[in-house]
Amino acid sequence: MSAAGRMFKAIDPATGLSLDEDFFSSQIVDAEEALQNAATAFQQYKNIGKARKSAFLRAIAEELILLGDTLINRAAAESGLPIARLQGELGRTTGQLRLFADLVEEGSWVNAIIDVALPERQPMARVDIRRMLVPIGPVIVFGASNFPLAFSVAGGDTASALAAGCPVIVKAHPAHPGTSKLVAEAIHRAIATCGLPRGVFSILYDDGYEIGAYLVKHHITKCVTFTGSFKGGMALHQMALQRREPIPVFTEMGSINPVILLPKAVENRADELAAQMAASVTMGAGQFCTNPGLMIALQTESLSNYIQVLSDAIAQTPSATMLSAGICANYKQLSENVLQSAAVTLLAESEIADQDKSNQSVARLASVKVADFLADPKLQEEVFGPFSLLVIADHIDQFEAVIDALGGQLTITVMADNQEMTDYAALLGKLSDKAGRLVLNAVPTGVEVCAAMQHGGPFPASSDSRFTSVGSTAIYRFARPVAWQGWDDKLLPDELKSGNPLGIFRLMDQNWTKD
Amino acid sequence: MSAAGRMFKAIDPATGLSLDEDFFSSQIVDAEEALQNAATAFQQYKNIGKARKSAFLRAIAEELILLGDTLINRAAAESGLPIARLQGELGRTTGQLRLFADLVEEGSWVNAIIDVALPERQPMARVDIRRMLVPIGPVIVFGASNFPLAFSVAGGDTASALAAGCPVIVKAHPAHPGTSKLVAEAIHRAIATCGLPRGVFSILYDDGYEIGAYLVKHHITKCVTFTGSFKGGMALHQMALQRREPIPVFTEMGSINPVILLPKAVENRADELAAQMAASVTMGAGQFCTNPGLMIALQTESLSNYIQVLSDAIAQTPSATMLSAGICANYKQLSENVLQSAAVTLLAESEIADQDKSNQSVARLASVKVADFLADPKLQEEVFGPFSLLVIADHIDQFEAVIDALGGQLTITVMADNQEMTDYAALLGKLSDKAGRLVLNAVPTGVEVCAAMQHGGPFPASSDSRFTSVGSTAIYRFARPVAWQGWDDKLLPDELKSGNPLGIFRLMDQNWTKD
Repeated sequence: MSAAGRMFKAIDPATGLSLDEDFFSSQIVDAEEALQNAATAFQQYKNIGKARKSAFLRAIAEELILLGDTLINRAAAESGLPIARLQGELGRTTGQLRLFADLVEEGSWVNAIIDVALPERQPMARVDIRRMLVPIGPVIVFGASNFPLAFSVAGGDTASALAAGCPVIVKAHPAHPGTSKLVAEAIHRAIATCGLPRGVFSILYDDGYEIGAYLVKHHITKCVTFTGSFKGGMALHQMALQRREPIPVFTEMGSINPVILLPKAVENRADELAAQMAASVTMGAGQFCTNPGLMIALQTESLSNYIQVLSDAIAQTPSATMLSAGICANYKQLSENVLQSAAVTLLAESEIADQDKSNQSVARLASVKVADFLADPKLQEEVFGPFSLLVIADHIDQFEAVIDALGGQLTITVMADNQEMTDYAALLGKLSDKAGRLVLNAVPTGVEVCAAMQHGGPFPASSDSRFTSVGSTAIYRFARPVAWQGWDDKLLPDELKSGNPLGIFRLMDQNWTKD
Repeated sequence: MSAAGRMFKAIDPATGLSLDEDFFSSQIVDAEEALQNAATAFQQYKNIGKARKSAFLRAIAEELILLGDTLINRAAAESGLPIARLQGELGRTTGQLRLFADLVEEGSWVNAIIDVALPERQPMARVDIRRMLVPIGPVIVFGASNFPLAFSVAGGDTASALAAGCPVIVKAHPAHPGTSKLVAEAIHRAIATCGLPRGVFSILYDDGYEIGAYLVKHHITKCVTFTGSFKGGMALHQMALQRREPIPVFTEMGSINPVILLPKAVENRADELAAQMAASVTMGAGQFCTNPGLMIALQTESLSNYIQVLSDAIAQTPSATMLSAGICANYKQLSENVLQSAAVTLLAESEIADQDKSNQSVARLASVKVADFLADPKLQEEVFGPFSLLVIADHIDQFEAVIDALGGQLTITVMADNQEMTDYAALLGKLSDKAGRLVLNAVPTGVEVCAAMQHGGPFPASSDSRFTSVGSTAIYRFARPVAWQGWDDKLLPDELKSGNPLGIFRLMDQNWTKD
C-alpha cells in the first residue's frame, strides 16, 4: 500500500466514533501493481494442481482461526454485529474455505468430458476430443458491508475463485478496513506457508470509487463479483460497459424475498407463522440479502390473528446497531418513503431501547391492499433493514397478479398446508421463473452453504441468474471450458489423461464414470 | 408476417441476379406479437416433459429431411455453396437436432444436485435442498450467413435452446430468406404434429437492423445468440447495453485460428503439412469460423519447401462462389489491406476460373516477419475468406511473443513431432489461455458436434468464453439453476423427486449416481 493515498478511519456504528488505526486509499499505481502481479501469478497458480490448491484453502481457514478474538472483536467494532453472530460467520467462512478445499481435492468439479476417437465411423472418422474447465483469470472481489467475513476478503467469492485457480484482488469495503486487513494478512501468511506466488491475492483500500473503477475496467481483469445494493451493482455494470472486452460481472443486488402465506396455513398455525416471520424479518437487524421484505396473504379472520401476533412481536423487537450510519439513514429513509404512501398502513414499530447507542434499527411492519401495491412499483423496492410489507388480497386469485408483477428474487417462500400445495399447483408452478430458491414452510433467511444451494435469481436480484454466489457451484463463475483435440496423452491435463489417473468423475457417452 | 413491410429478394451470388419470391421485412407489430407469443408459450413449453421435447426435436429433423432437394437447391441458389456441402450441412443439422433429442431424453443434462436433510447435524440441522437447471426464457437467434442450415433457423442455437425448454424467435439472415422460410415452415409443421403452442417458434425477416434491435432490447427476451462478424457481434452488444436488465448475449465473432508449425514437423513432413493447410485454408472458399488465417513457422530450409508446396496448392485452388456480394467485396478489401502493408509479401494467389460467375473467391497466401507482425495489430484482424498469413520467425523464442500478442481464438493448432510436444511444453502450456480448442496435428476446420466440443474462445473470438455454440453443452447457455428447499416431493420436478423416477444422474455428496 502506498502511503500517499487519502487517509480514512473505520467508524464504530454503535458509538459513531472513529476507531484507531489509519487506513490509506490505494493509488492507481497500487492497483496496477496488483493487476500485473495477478497476471504473472496466474501463469503459475493455474497449474499448481489440486493438492496444493486445497492445502492453500485449508491454510487460509487455519490462519483465520488463529486470529480468533482479535478478528471477531475488530469485526464487531467495525460492523456493530454481535459477537455470537460474528463467531457464527467466522465458522461459515472457514467452512466455505474447507468446502472448496474438499471440492478441489475430489477434483470432479472440472466437468471433464471425453469423446474418444471413432476411426471407423462413417462417413467420417471421429477425432479424440477431451474437454474440461480451466480458470478464467484474475478476479476482482468487492467486499460486502453486511458480511464482513463470509462475503468479504476471504469470503465465498474469494474462496471459490481461488479454488477455480484464479488470482483474486479484493477491493476492501470501506466500512471494515481493519477486519479486511487482518484477513488479508492471514491470506498472505497462507500464501507464504504454501510457497505460492504473492500475486495470487492482493487487497486494495479506497473509501471512494476510483480504485474499484480502475480494477473493473482493466484488461487484465477477467471477472468481477459484488454483493450489495442495486445502485452499487448497476454502477459496476456501467463501469464494465466501458471495457472493450465484455467480461462476466456478477452483482447480487438484493431482493424482497416474498413470502406467500396460503390461507389454510394461516388458519391452522397463525401464531407459529407470526413468530417465525417476526424472527426472520428482524434477524441481524434485517440486514440479510434474503430478508423477507414482502408477505402476501388473503384477508381472513385468521389473518387478523396473524397480524396481531406478528405486530406484537415486531413492536417488541429489541433495537440493534445497524452496519453503518449510511445504512441506518438509508433504512429510515426508505421505510419512511413506503409509509408515506397513502395506501400503506403502519401496523407495528419497535422502539429504540438504548438511546446512548447510535444507528439503532427500528423494526417496522406495514400493510397494503393488492390493488394499491400493484399501482405503485416503488413498493417493490428493497428496504434494507428490519422491515416487511404485508400485501393483503381480497381474493386468492389476486396472488397471481402480485407474483406476475414482481421482479426477480433471490428467494420465494411458501407457507402452505399439505392440500394447498396441490390446490395452488398452477400458482406455485410459476415461482421458478421468478426466483433462484423456493422455500416451503420455513424462512428464507439462513442460507445453507452446500452443493445444491442457489443464491442468485433473475434480475434485479442478481445480474446473471445462471450462477450462484453461495455453495460449491459458485466455482463455475470463474471457469471456462477448453477442448483438446487429438492431443498427446502425456501433455494433456491429468484430469483428461487416459486411465483417469486422478480418479475423478468424467462424462463419457452420457455416463458419469470414474473409469 | 405483415405484408406492409419493405420488400426484398434473395440474390444468387453466382449470378448476381435476384431469385424469384418476394420477402417482406417484418414490422414492429410482428416482432411484438412473436415476443408475446413466446412469453405465453414458455409457460406451457417449459413443463412439457422430456419425452415430448425430444419428440419435437426429432420431428423437426424429419420435416427437414422431407424437404430434401427443395431445401438444398434453394440454399444453394441463395448461398452459392455447392450441393454436396449443403447435403453434408443438412446431415449435420438433423444430426444436431437428434443429438439434443438424445440429450433431453436421457435427462441428466439438468445437473440435478441433491443435499438431503440432516436433522441431527450440529450446531444446526441441515434442510433438504434440491437444485436443477430450468429454461431461462425466450431466446433470440440470429441466422448466420455462412451456415444457412447448421447455424440458422433450425441450427445448433435453435436446437439447443428448444432442448433447454426455451421458445425461440429467429431473425432470418437476409441473404437466405427462402431457405429460412422453408425451414421455419418445417418447424411449424413439427409444432402442429406435436401439439405444441405455436409461440414456441417464430421467424422474422428484415434486411435492415430495426427488427433485430427491437428483439434484443425487449424485456421478454432473456438471451441472444449470434454467429458472424466482429462488427456485427459488437453492434448487438451495444444494443443489449440499452436494456435495463442485463441478459446473456452470445456472439461468436470469428477468429484467425493460428497454426503453430514446429520446426521438426516442417522438416519431416513439409509436403503433407502444406497439402493439409492448403485444403483447410481454401475449404468452402475459406468461409468457416475456424479457417486458419495465421501460421507461425521458423525460417529454415524445410520451410522454403513447405512454402513452395503450399504456394503451388493455393495458386491452383479453383475459385468458388462466395456467400454474397458483400462478403466477397469485404474479402477482397481486407486481404488487399493486408497486402498493402510494406512488410507483407504475397506468396501465392489463385485465378478466377469461370469469368461468367460473380463473387468468385481468389485464394491468397502472404508472409510477414515476426517483428513486422508484432508492430502492426491490423495484421491480426480476421480476413473472412480463403486467405492465410504466414508469420516467419528467425528464432523459436519469437513464437511466444506472437502467441502473447494474439487476442482470444476459437482454436489454436499445433503441428509437432512427438519430441517437440515435450521440448516446447512451456509454450504449449500457454495456449489454453488463448483459445477454446487446441488441435494437435490436424486442421482446425471441421468442427465435430459432440459432448466434448468447445466452440467459443476468449474475446474477441466470442463474447463469453464460458460457453460453447457447438456440441451438446451448448444447451447450458439457456438454463439457470433453481433450488427447492424443504419442498413437497409430489410437487418437485420429476428430476428431483426422491427415488429418482427418471433414472438420471444426480450429484449427491460429490457422487454422480442414478440411485
